Amino acid sequence: MGKLAIGIDLGGTNLKGVLLNEQGELAKIYRIPTEANKGGAQVLQKILYFIDLLIKSKPINEKIVGVGIGTPGFISEDGLVLGGAENLPGWKGTRLYEPIQQRFGLRAVAANDVTVMALAESRFGAGRGVKNLACFALGTGIGGGLVIDGKLYKGTHGMAGEMGHISVEPDGILCNCGNRGCVEQYASATGIANLGKIFASENQNIKKTPFVAEALKDLSKVTSKMVYDFVHKNDPVAVEVHEKACDMMARAVGIVMNVLAPDRVVLGGGVLKAGQVILDTVSKYTHRYCWPSIRQYCDIVIAESGENSGVLGAGAMAFDEFLNK
Amino acid sequence: MGKLAIGIDLGGTNLKGVLLNEQGELAKIYRIPTEANKGGAQVLQKILYFIDLLIKSKPINEKIVGVGIGTPGFISEDGLVLGGAENLPGWKGTRLYEPIQQRFGLRAVAANDVTVMALAESRFGAGRGVKNLACFALGTGIGGGLVIDGKLYKGTHGMAGEMGHISVEPDGILCNCGNRGCVEQYASATGIANLGKIFASENQNIKKTPFVAEALKDLSKVTSKMVYDFVHKNDPVAVEVHEKACDMMARAVGIVMNVLAPDRVVLGGGVLKAGQVILDTVSKYTHRYCWPSIRQYCDIVIAESGENSGVLGAGAMAFDEFLNK
Repeated sequence: MGKLAIGIDLGGTNLKGVLLNEQGELAKIYRIPTEANKGGAQVLQKILYFIDLLIKSKPINEKIVGVGIGTPGFISEDGLVLGGAENLPGWKGTRLYEPIQQRFGLRAVAANDVTVMALAESRFGAGRGVKNLACFALGTGIGGGLVIDGKLYKGTHGMAGEMGHISVEPDGILCNCGNRGCVEQYASATGIANLGKIFASENQNIKKTPFVAEALKDLSKVTSKMVYDFVHKNDPVAVEVHEKACDMMARAVGIVMNVLAPDRVVLGGGVLKAGQVILDTVSKYTHRYCWPSIRQYCDIVIAESGENSGVLGAGAMAFDEFLNK
Repeated sequence: MGKLAIGIDLGGTNLKGVLLNEQGELAKIYRIPTEANKGGAQVLQKILYFIDLLIKSKPINEKIVGVGIGTPGFISEDGLVLGGAENLPGWKGTRLYEPIQQRFGLRAVAANDVTVMALAESRFGAGRGVKNLACFALGTGIGGGLVIDGKLYKGTHGMAGEMGHISVEPDGILCNCGNRGCVEQYASATGIANLGKIFASENQNIKKTPFVAEALKDLSKVTSKMVYDFVHKNDPVAVEVHEKACDMMARAVGIVMNVLAPDRVVLGGGVLKAGQVILDTVSKYTHRYCWPSIRQYCDIVIAESGENSGVLGAGAMAFDEFLNK
């Protein structure tokens, strides 16, 4: 009999559920809007509804080993959402494992959504074949995940991998966490857009490049995508923004390399749509911030598992936790 | 039959070897000068001589499970010294496992000497009872070690835990690794002494405190101990040095917390002889550099396993590797 896992990816906007096998092949995919504003209890009902659908769609000769859930926030070892999920009102305090066990007789395991992406990369993406992996997801903020000796490392209360809050400039920009100079203030999509606004304003009477002119039309419309559209045209101010963002990112990457000496670092998330130029610049600057012997044995690559990384990682986590147990 | 392990701690100055049981009780201790200047081959002979002595001193009803070695530098998975042991000329390139296996029929495992201290703290010291532990050893330089899910984490080629080279001030003091602002330039014994010299010189015509007066007699004689002797007398300039060193240390500790969300951070090494004042100040400042939810669940304590931490950790590593295998 074949073995399948259910993978659930809970996002602020969409909820996704899949049936997958150990090779990461997806047998079924469902997606619906999360409607986070309707509250945590409603979101949990949607997850249960998805699990029901997925169980019913299971081929008769396959067995489901368990349910893996990637969710915003921190999750205790027994599946209680402890906090850190500000975009899902009422989600804190939800118990994730009991209702799944009670209703379907299936065991469940949950972890932070960005953390599980690291597992997806490790099993099915850019981290295949290495033991120790550090992932950075550069999106609206910056999250991260660690795979240690081939296993997802969650840390105390599932909180490991808060790479976005590595302080790379102790007197730098104030972060919404209350501290200063967190790397996500510089190298997330939001951070890059903010740097774009700052550099455009500063250059309005100095270097009025096409990027500066475009940005000054309406600073509120500056995005990281816009910055990189101009980087690809070699606009000197856009390139300065890019260099600053990548230098800050390299500080965080270099530090993580020094602490963990991973085999590989994976950079993913929406910001990496700008592609090779980010990878190359971050790679170059990490040499400034990492012990040479460690840097020498660690490569930096772009994530591969794409938009399904959340459900793939969640399913892989269920296999790790429940297969043969 | 009882089980024992051999623990070897190779230092630049002394070589130490012990027989210990699973509770970390030492049955035998031998110590001789390393005489590193005589070269790597000679050092290896001394280690073999120690193992021979320790085997001969073993009670007849006990069994030795294997040999654990803590050594400066990086060690490959098969026991080859890859580098990073500058104070032991000719040590790079040494194969550690084969001669022990061939001569005594015992399996051996080696790791970086500071890394194994983390295991000693985890089993027998300030890290007892927690799963995830990050240790910092503040000595001449700063080293570190990680225990992840109860096991020593070595990283690629045993290079994990280079906490001393976390860049805490990207435009800061040049480090001998070639990068700038590594935390060991501020918070190691050497770093604190250097800050003492700088602050004393800068204050010679501004705040001529007793510390400044004493330091200016001969700047080459300023040590971290001298700085802390004056800190304990509330000398304002010595306190400034202390605050700066601890702020820098807190940056590194806060970063490691954000990355790993460990249960506990242990600070050890000679610098911690100054005691509670360092722990308190570092603890206080980490809040500036760590995500509040992570900081809340992680405590910071002083190392307990003392001068035998190297041999204790080496022996514990041998138990982990070879007991029941």
